[in-house]
Amino acid sequence: MAKLVLIRHGQSEWNLSNQFTGWVDVDLSEKGVEQAKNAGKLIKEQGIEFDYAFTSVLTRAIKTLHYALEESDQLWIPEVKTWRLNERHYGALQGQNKAKAAEKWGDEQVHIWRRSYDVLPPLLDANAEGSAAKDRRYANLDPRMIPGGENLKVTLERVIPFWEDEIAPKLLDGKNVIIAAHGNSLRALSKYIENISDEDIMNLEMATGEPVVYDFNDKLEVQNKTKLD
Amino acid sequence: MAKLVLIRHGQSEWNLSNQFTGWVDVDLSEKGVEQAKNAGKLIKEQGIEFDYAFTSVLTRAIKTLHYALEESDQLWIPEVKTWRLNERHYGALQGQNKAKAAEKWGDEQVHIWRRSYDVLPPLLDANAEGSAAKDRRYANLDPRMIPGGENLKVTLERVIPFWEDEIAPKLLDGKNVIIAAHGNSLRALSKYIENISDEDIMNLEMATGEPVVYDFNDKLEVQNKTKLD
Repeated sequence: MAKLVLIRHGQSEWNLSNQFTGWVDVDLSEKGVEQAKNAGKLIKEQGIEFDYAFTSVLTRAIKTLHYALEESDQLWIPEVKTWRLNERHYGALQGQNKAKAAEKWGDEQVHIWRRSYDVLPPLLDANAEGSAAKDRRYANLDPRMIPGGENLKVTLERVIPFWEDEIAPKLLDGKNVIIAAHGNSLRALSKYIENISDEDIMNLEMATGEPVVYDFNDKLEVQNKTKLD
Repeated sequence: MAKLVLIRHGQSEWNLSNQFTGWVDVDLSEKGVEQAKNAGKLIKEQGIEFDYAFTSVLTRAIKTLHYALEESDQLWIPEVKTWRLNERHYGALQGQNKAKAAEKWGDEQVHIWRRSYDVLPPLLDANAEGSAAKDRRYANLDPRMIPGGENLKVTLERVIPFWEDEIAPKLLDGKNVIIAAHGNSLRALSKYIENISDEDIMNLEMATGEPVVYDFNDKLEVQNKTKLD
């Protein structure tokens, strides 16, 4: 039986200021740091020992992972960072205040962008300020892979190849894995792991900094799902 | 031209209490955290952008790396942790106060253990409390590779295979590399890189938290060595 622990990063500074974040590299707030440390304490209480850690290339998820590992005395385990675990790219909405966006485009339109499975947000041009195409951390990617905006469907389509290639084999091998990532990349993973429908998935909410533990059998079927809090 | 930056971890709690540390997983002191952050600021001032990061499996080096990378806005770069960059294993001296050890064994003997190139310290039995053989982080190593105590010569012999296999090829490929490690694993690397004699190497001291920058040409010959402070 292998264990998988998912942690959504602690509160970020833009969660606080109610801005669309996506791929913008915003830091954790003080509360977010405390949430991440607390996640590590909960993991330690459960005595969960990891073999591998995965996270995105965004600072708020990386730091959440590091705090959680340090608090559970396993900062030394191997760690891989990948853009495939990044938050959903929020396109031209990135950086905008959510309330102001609702004034500008209307509540209903913004709700659709936030909660529909397959409607894309307004896209960010590759030449625009803040485009990932200009960011050194994506310089090794085929430019066609760098999104100008994503919905959950597109997010899932780039998360799952990494799951299949890098994570699932380790769980099948009986190794314990921790993933620190984002609301929507973790939603995509949960949808795939639990086989949740396109309609139901948008209602799944993961609380920031609350570890979710899956126990798998040797066919990678979920035997148990627990939230630590 | 590739750049290599070496950082010796910031002050640890046992540097403060004057104890032999070796492979014991002691945390950074508050001053050590500040030193690590300051190293990151110096790197940022120089505008050095890394492609790869390497560190040991000991918390004080890992945290030094993370603070330095975060302060220079590149916490997202790929990071590999390896026991081969660990501090020299100090055998049965680990945990002992250095002044008390001098009382017990005599100043001269302790000086020899600390400063000779090829004299081993008293060894720690694999079954003793605190033996690395009982530590989960070394569970994937051939037990014959787990030392009971090392001199600088033995330390160098386990550091250099990692340099040759994992680090040198990246520098030859023009990539910039940062290594956060320990007084003696970095001494071993410096000896090899600069071709320093067995006699002279023990006089090389790296200050905690002060980055050393090497510039290499495409034959991996040192063109320049600078300390940032």
